[in-house]
Amino acid sequence: MADPGATLLDRLAGIVGRPHVLTSAADVAPYLADWRGRYRGATRAVVKPGATTEVAAVVRTCAEVGVAIVPQGGNTGLCGGATPDATGHEIVLSLARMNRVRALDAANATITVEAGMPLAAVHEAAAAAGLVFPLSLASEGSCTIGGNLATNAGGTAVLRYGNARDLTLGVEAVLADGSVFEALRGLRKDNTGYDLKQLFIGAEGTLGVVTAAVLKLFPAPRTRVTALAAIASVECAVALLGRLQRALADRLTGFELMSAFSLTLSRKHHPGAPDPLPGHPWYALVQADDAVTDAPLAALVEAALAAAIEAGDAADAVLAQSGEQAARMWALRENISEAQRREGPNIKHDISLPVSAIPAFMAECGDGLTRAFPGSRLVVFGHLGDGNLHYNLSAPEGVVADAFMDNAERANRIVHDLVAHHAGSFSAEHGVGQLKRADLVRYKGDVELRLMRAVKQALDPRGLMNPGKVL
Amino acid sequence: MADPGATLLDRLAGIVGRPHVLTSAADVAPYLADWRGRYRGATRAVVKPGATTEVAAVVRTCAEVGVAIVPQGGNTGLCGGATPDATGHEIVLSLARMNRVRALDAANATITVEAGMPLAAVHEAAAAAGLVFPLSLASEGSCTIGGNLATNAGGTAVLRYGNARDLTLGVEAVLADGSVFEALRGLRKDNTGYDLKQLFIGAEGTLGVVTAAVLKLFPAPRTRVTALAAIASVECAVALLGRLQRALADRLTGFELMSAFSLTLSRKHHPGAPDPLPGHPWYALVQADDAVTDAPLAALVEAALAAAIEAGDAADAVLAQSGEQAARMWALRENISEAQRREGPNIKHDISLPVSAIPAFMAECGDGLTRAFPGSRLVVFGHLGDGNLHYNLSAPEGVVADAFMDNAERANRIVHDLVAHHAGSFSAEHGVGQLKRADLVRYKGDVELRLMRAVKQALDPRGLMNPGKVL
Repeated sequence: MADPGATLLDRLAGIVGRPHVLTSAADVAPYLADWRGRYRGATRAVVKPGATTEVAAVVRTCAEVGVAIVPQGGNTGLCGGATPDATGHEIVLSLARMNRVRALDAANATITVEAGMPLAAVHEAAAAAGLVFPLSLASEGSCTIGGNLATNAGGTAVLRYGNARDLTLGVEAVLADGSVFEALRGLRKDNTGYDLKQLFIGAEGTLGVVTAAVLKLFPAPRTRVTALAAIASVECAVALLGRLQRALADRLTGFELMSAFSLTLSRKHHPGAPDPLPGHPWYALVQADDAVTDAPLAALVEAALAAAIEAGDAADAVLAQSGEQAARMWALRENISEAQRREGPNIKHDISLPVSAIPAFMAECGDGLTRAFPGSRLVVFGHLGDGNLHYNLSAPEGVVADAFMDNAERANRIVHDLVAHHAGSFSAEHGVGQLKRADLVRYKGDVELRLMRAVKQALDPRGLMNPGKVL
Repeated sequence: MADPGATLLDRLAGIVGRPHVLTSAADVAPYLADWRGRYRGATRAVVKPGATTEVAAVVRTCAEVGVAIVPQGGNTGLCGGATPDATGHEIVLSLARMNRVRALDAANATITVEAGMPLAAVHEAAAAAGLVFPLSLASEGSCTIGGNLATNAGGTAVLRYGNARDLTLGVEAVLADGSVFEALRGLRKDNTGYDLKQLFIGAEGTLGVVTAAVLKLFPAPRTRVTALAAIASVECAVALLGRLQRALADRLTGFELMSAFSLTLSRKHHPGAPDPLPGHPWYALVQADDAVTDAPLAALVEAALAAAIEAGDAADAVLAQSGEQAARMWALRENISEAQRREGPNIKHDISLPVSAIPAFMAECGDGLTRAFPGSRLVVFGHLGDGNLHYNLSAPEGVVADAFMDNAERANRIVHDLVAHHAGSFSAEHGVGQLKRADLVRYKGDVELRLMRAVKQALDPRGLMNPGKVL
């Protein structure tokens, strides 16, 4: 038995080992602020367990003394979901040391990994078996599977493979009382009662701590085609997307919409980037994959794009002629966020809509923001195939003062009210965290909120799992 | 306000209309027994609301007087999940009148339907828009979408498209207190708090009544290839599956394993069925689809099968040369269940396993059952690609007495213990209902059971939603 007189930190050190309880200001600093530096908190200690039994013991020990836990993976979240509050009472539970592959079952096309494993390391482990784990995010070098599940991460391959939830067959999680929910099942069909793993996916650590998961793997694509299309309007972009889905079905793995201005910024701040189709208002980055080696995919994509141009759904198009050209096209898309940061203050939105509602939404929202914030510049891009847009607003040219950010509340209201009007979501893939708690209360109906609170109460009655996040 | 002196049935008639409250023995009879005739119950009345508001009012009214509700769709379930108990106190809530398409959004590739819509009618509505809803079950002419969601239905296309859960974007459900959970969202990315719709999918009506859903649609396949492969062993079948998945990836939409004896029974009771590859112990029905018209799919399948024969993963193979031949191959598979019924008493199992564990499981389980029940005959078939087997036991030849069914408990124990040993599931796609409640308690861990009960308590504290099912 633990010595009841021992301090909490001594007891935690007894569980995970003294070197894995961080308390000095320098040691804990990296865990106290979110990636964007918007949230900053304090902590008694950062505790880094090395095994599920240790996580369970840490949670149980904290529960005994009523201390709250903030789980943290790669700390790459965009909504402050992994940052402790300012009181200094909370414990940060870092899963970073739990980063092993527990099993890879090629015949079952599954991999079982611990929560702290970086997404890129999962990619590598799958590739070594000739398979792919298709979840793909800008932060994949740093973000962890535990965080990916906790936020139901999306990214650029959702069109074909779905979100983190769709890619997860089994979950192991430590509950608020320190007991372990063991459901690391690698089954594609299992209808034995409530599918409890769903509770932990997307709950941002507020219902328990994900410690491991069984993930689906897929045959590796053997033929890839990347193309850039120039498009006259958002309506045309939606039509082009539908046309490519009909022509390519599952072969269509990416359809990234980008406004001309978002590409202008990308090129301005990353000189030397290509500009193969200048002079159009919209662009789509199209990716198609085929599991068959040397499949006649380029011909299929070319034919579909030619028909689109003929019909007016696309104005022009170009296929990447090499892997290097394709990588440069993708860099154009991926550099937008960083370019926007360098350009000055900006207000970001991660929204989703029914694809069919996007043209009307865009027209109304563009008008509303332009009227409200004259001179400010829309930076619109995103995963059109999923109805997911990063609908951002950059300060007027030359404005670098942070005062522009005082507009955030008002801009969010304009965007999110219109999103709600069009039956969309105010957080498509980034989650709620601390950033969007007020939106949750504003836009969810009473019944839905009440139900969320009932679930929280059932699983974490004392409110010790990542308090102040989501709900 | 309702007259407090009115009887419950009068109040319900006031909500749904007198003709939609059935009470005579003849009228209610079809609702009181399950499809297989294993369960038989009684009821105060079968109530058939025509709209969600009516469902809500019925549930609220019943809750006021403490009367339990048994939701029922097409009444095709195999585990007694939609049959009332014998007390006659419960109300059967039939969703049959709620059978409309509320919306079809082709650009968003979604359809919004009411719970009572038959699955086949959803297929037709999707087809009219040039799209498909891929959930495919033997009972699709009778089963309803509400039941499909309540049981997280699987079927023959899970390999490519997933279960009902994977095909559902939004849910509308009436909760235990009669309030309406409104989440009919057609979004492919939405991370705004807990994904509550997951609670109602697969819960068999024990947490609320699904009244409508937003379902994903897909581009219609334009090229289809169907093949039958003869296989020397279960190990070879697993190897063949892996080979076809690598060669065809998403194009592989079906891989149905069938033992020689299951096909013998199918042909015996459905004379005239083909027998193109006689004399092998195992067979696989392979289906491949491509969204592209006139895709070179047959060549791809032929090459993969030829390579499999070369490597010994398949012994022989034949491609259907026409739609009619393909239909006859599928009929062979689909007629197994009915043939088994005609052959005499049989004990059925709907299990799933990691695909990699299936050969060892089969060897051990076949031994165990043959030793325990000499002369009885294994009828093994199923969706190998999902790890889902219908692992059934027919009485010895000529035995027609129901006394064989006295072996069910012992046979179930042999099969399900081995399933548990191999990290499988005792109910892959049929759910729990009344039939497998004891298995749930036996095979789930304490933490998982406790969590299920906590969720039930949170959503239905008075236990009025389909009591005696699942938990």
